[in-house]
Amino acid sequence: MDSAARTVRSDRAAMLSALDLVRRIEAGELKPRAVVEMCAEAIAEREPEVGAFVALDLDAARRAAEDPRLAAAPLRGLAVAFKDIFDTADFPTQYGSPIYSGYRPRADASAVAMTRRAGGVVIGKTVTTQFASLVPSVTRNPHHAAHTPGGSSAGSAAAVGAGMVPIAFGTQTAGSVIRPAAFCGVAGFKPSYRLIPIVGVKAVSWHLDTAGLFGAGVADVAFAAAVVLDRDLRVDRAMPAAPRIALARSHLWSQASPAMQKAVETAARIAAAAGATVTDVTLPPLLEQAYAAQHTIQDYETIRALAFEYDRHRDQIDKLLRDQLDAAAAISADEYDAARRVASRARQVLADTMADHDVIVTPSAPGAAPHGLGATGNPMFNRLWTLMGTPCVNVPGLSESGLPLGVQIVGRFGRDRAALEAALFVEQAIKRKMGMS
Amino acid sequence: MDSAARTVRSDRAAMLSALDLVRRIEAGELKPRAVVEMCAEAIAEREPEVGAFVALDLDAARRAAEDPRLAAAPLRGLAVAFKDIFDTADFPTQYGSPIYSGYRPRADASAVAMTRRAGGVVIGKTVTTQFASLVPSVTRNPHHAAHTPGGSSAGSAAAVGAGMVPIAFGTQTAGSVIRPAAFCGVAGFKPSYRLIPIVGVKAVSWHLDTAGLFGAGVADVAFAAAVVLDRDLRVDRAMPAAPRIALARSHLWSQASPAMQKAVETAARIAAAAGATVTDVTLPPLLEQAYAAQHTIQDYETIRALAFEYDRHRDQIDKLLRDQLDAAAAISADEYDAARRVASRARQVLADTMADHDVIVTPSAPGAAPHGLGATGNPMFNRLWTLMGTPCVNVPGLSESGLPLGVQIVGRFGRDRAALEAALFVEQAIKRKMGMS
Repeated sequence: MDSAARTVRSDRAAMLSALDLVRRIEAGELKPRAVVEMCAEAIAEREPEVGAFVALDLDAARRAAEDPRLAAAPLRGLAVAFKDIFDTADFPTQYGSPIYSGYRPRADASAVAMTRRAGGVVIGKTVTTQFASLVPSVTRNPHHAAHTPGGSSAGSAAAVGAGMVPIAFGTQTAGSVIRPAAFCGVAGFKPSYRLIPIVGVKAVSWHLDTAGLFGAGVADVAFAAAVVLDRDLRVDRAMPAAPRIALARSHLWSQASPAMQKAVETAARIAAAAGATVTDVTLPPLLEQAYAAQHTIQDYETIRALAFEYDRHRDQIDKLLRDQLDAAAAISADEYDAARRVASRARQVLADTMADHDVIVTPSAPGAAPHGLGATGNPMFNRLWTLMGTPCVNVPGLSESGLPLGVQIVGRFGRDRAALEAALFVEQAIKRKMGMS
Repeated sequence: MDSAARTVRSDRAAMLSALDLVRRIEAGELKPRAVVEMCAEAIAEREPEVGAFVALDLDAARRAAEDPRLAAAPLRGLAVAFKDIFDTADFPTQYGSPIYSGYRPRADASAVAMTRRAGGVVIGKTVTTQFASLVPSVTRNPHHAAHTPGGSSAGSAAAVGAGMVPIAFGTQTAGSVIRPAAFCGVAGFKPSYRLIPIVGVKAVSWHLDTAGLFGAGVADVAFAAAVVLDRDLRVDRAMPAAPRIALARSHLWSQASPAMQKAVETAARIAAAAGATVTDVTLPPLLEQAYAAQHTIQDYETIRALAFEYDRHRDQIDKLLRDQLDAAAAISADEYDAARRVASRARQVLADTMADHDVIVTPSAPGAAPHGLGATGNPMFNRLWTLMGTPCVNVPGLSESGLPLGVQIVGRFGRDRAALEAALFVEQAIKRKMGMS
């Protein structure tokens, strides 16, 4: 394992910016086919080490990229990858589980069809942990192969981080977009609950499952989300306004590493120096209860969402997930209903708390990607926000000993554009400070 | 068509009561296998005329009913049918569409797996209109074969109405549980939004799609929902308390037939005579706006939920649905967001309106099942409640010229048991008045 465990190249410039590529296509400097070749070259170089893909069809992507109609479509033939819990008619879809070995859905998930509709070329499916759970996957962190890329959207985050594809989709039920984005040093965007349809995505928890996406930078994910959803989410056409930021050291703050605490405080200080208003905010105690409620809701729903697999293929479910499901069987409807009432009240309390702020800044994860591939890291800093349904953005740009540290920008429900704009503001301020732009 | 168009037997006693059957199994008078035979006999007699099933496997049901473990399971081996938009691993699942001809999903929908877990024996799949839309199906009304059974859960309502199965599941996005239940003279229960998981159910509109079920009477659907969901929803163990009923003549009241208006007023009067409090209530104007918002939300989501089918198999989508989708393409994200904000405010206003009432009584449909099979009837009296996510129950028992008239009981969100109890109270009062019990 020595060769695999060596430090891999972590040059951020190696990432493919969706916006840059689309602008170059629009300027006639590049053809969509050439973008597929850029992906193919990076995949040839990095994939043996990173292991981000579970299915790839570069030849089909090359053919699709030649379609002249792409010139009029907003994604201009850009290559896109999907986590392998999005159904695809043209690729096997296995949900990270041997139960679905060789499974080929009849239809594309809505997000896949909408991406094609917007002119995206689907090049492949990325590794997911088993049913998007905490079970580790084979994928390695593109910044250091001995470290986890996070989960459950491991392959999507790693593929973007390694420069193998400009845009990849994932999902988050606890912390599966923001955490791997942070670990892999890429921008991650978990929009407001149900902004991206999850039709055709393997369900784990229907009140939590949220589709999101990964890109090189904040403006890239905003652009891709804007054109796939046909929504006013682009933030690349003007300087972002200075946001009103709440710095919230939640009850979990002490569980963030010193480097992560420093990263969040540094991001806030740099943003303030660039003109943002930064206010220390104490989150109401009800949000601590809501954090616990997220566990109850997720587990109660997962054993029902996976009822068929649990009842008929129990022996093919990884022990880590099976134990979680076994324990979930004890959660009563009353406990679940109580958890949902807490969540509902907490959403109201959070809206009140955020009335005078555009966003909250908080850690994306407890620290940098942990060493080892036996666990995918802890989603503790993400669970609450998934339950609240608020837009979250991982802002990359800071690091610790060569490993990325992610700062999380949490917006108000339904104000996805404002969250993205604030995240871009912070990202740009960090870049300027670090002398990277 | 003369023989098919003749009036068919409409004897309510011909329906199979889930509760009665389970009690007889528990008393040792009946075996689950015998229930399958009762279904088989009724199917042999009625199915050629009614056309409720798209897939049946009585031999598999007979074998499944012999499983000795069923004696310990709450459904005791009761035969159950599912609308053909619930995925089933053991039956083809075609969503009423030629696009899915011969499709066999890899997994059961959660509700199917949970029904099996509760000791239900799945005997077959019932006819759905194409993708649960307004496109008419081949199924005929069990009370009069020249009349529509309603839609989109046509087969499930007709199968229960014809006594071919004691319990059948369906779904409602606009009015597809309550309307066919009313037309077919059966109890229909659309629980609160997401009380029954819709995992593995073909999605049409993710903020609206709601699974529900059909049975001979209110206590039957309450029992089946209780044991499948493992929730305190049974109403058969004590006399129902007298409910506080709001009689709401909404802005649509004038579009109900005179017989339907009389049925609702009669039900209210009979309930009052039996001890219920009945108050005339005017619904706030915002609910009228919400009614319009339901159309916007459904259409905006349907063209995205069916993105794959619309983009790749347009010519195989029925023109009625295709035209609806074509028009839906013009709905902007801003219009959709505005509709969702109206819905959100309306839910709050409705909760305030219902603070002093347990339920609203209102028509289940504009009248009895319309003549002809070229349309499935109008869901106008159901759209608002689907959007509000409130529990709704169709109470059978009244009729016009031999065709059933359904009265709708609408409960408060999350108070499903109270809605079922009030519906049972009304049902029993009607039965006593009509000399049927």
